[in-house]
Amino acid sequence: MAGGRFITFEGIDGSGKTTQIRALAARLRERGEAVVETREPGGAPGAEEIRRLLVEGAPGRWSPETEILLFTAARRDHLERVIAPALGRGETVLCDRYVDSTRAYQGVARADLRSTVDALHDRMIRREADLTLILDLDPGEAVARERARGGAEDRFERFGPEFQVRLRAAFLGLAAEFPARCHVVPAGEAPPRVAARIAEIVG
Amino acid sequence: MAGGRFITFEGIDGSGKTTQIRALAARLRERGEAVVETREPGGAPGAEEIRRLLVEGAPGRWSPETEILLFTAARRDHLERVIAPALGRGETVLCDRYVDSTRAYQGVARADLRSTVDALHDRMIRREADLTLILDLDPGEAVARERARGGAEDRFERFGPEFQVRLRAAFLGLAAEFPARCHVVPAGEAPPRVAARIAEIVG
Repeated sequence: MAGGRFITFEGIDGSGKTTQIRALAARLRERGEAVVETREPGGAPGAEEIRRLLVEGAPGRWSPETEILLFTAARRDHLERVIAPALGRGETVLCDRYVDSTRAYQGVARADLRSTVDALHDRMIRREADLTLILDLDPGEAVARERARGGAEDRFERFGPEFQVRLRAAFLGLAAEFPARCHVVPAGEAPPRVAARIAEIVG
Repeated sequence: MAGGRFITFEGIDGSGKTTQIRALAARLRERGEAVVETREPGGAPGAEEIRRLLVEGAPGRWSPETEILLFTAARRDHLERVIAPALGRGETVLCDRYVDSTRAYQGVARADLRSTVDALHDRMIRREADLTLILDLDPGEAVARERARGGAEDRFERFGPEFQVRLRAAFLGLAAEFPARCHVVPAGEAPPRVAARIAEIVG
């Protein structure tokens, strides 16, 4: 294979991305594919250190602009050290969040930030996913799932229900904006049914 | 005063920036000016955390592109939290290194990086100093001074004499590029004489 496939998973917290990545990875490995499971922010040693600056500490610790620079720095490191080398070896990369998360979160926080995210992406990252699965779930259901699961890194989960509703809309907006790359997957059903839907899309 | 003056100090390691900032700050305070002394990378609590990512660890830990993103993130934080508020209060800000250091270091490391530094600066920072003092010293003398002083954060001092020679040339090149803002100050004389020269320029 001349270059592996780069598949990203997006959606609000609690939409089941981790579970679905694990399921898809198992399925692809069963048929002999080499698969790298990774996540953002982080996914490489340097990028994980930048992640700690982003997810720990008080909200408002960074301005949105500084935050976008740190996300882009972490993404560049992750792309250089993990994603691009794996794709170069012909492996499949499954990534929990990528640039669409930055587009969605920052765009919801303040409309004019979307152009900043895109400008930095175009200059410093460029690589888009080959396929993006947007797991779509009602925020009320997602919050209930998250509560059941616990979780310490809740900086991005503290924004409240209204923010989550707008975030869901932002992800659906991105799906409409990039129809060739993005597929919306309803994520309210039982995980095996969601996995089956994803299997169909991935092929 | 409607907005204070932003004065940056640039030059290779060991050129005497710290000493000269201290001397100028004392002189300005004597005549009643409020002065903020700060430095880059760092200068604000968040920016100092980013500084640690930049100055600690092995060389080559970050690619030049990731490094430029981290420098820009630290600068944005420093500008927002410390420099701009102080200037807004009419204070004088004296800063040990600013964007010219990033331009010089990265441009010497790899010529095409200069345009990346400038693109990120134009998008995310924009603010240039009102006055930049480039302390110019022979790298051989600077290294001897540095050795006498010791110093743990030597990531940028490890590049070797040839790099320092090219870096000095890069700073002189920036002075030629921005003649209205940059003044070259010969830094080989005794510190009080260098301070007197700076006092003349600053007014």
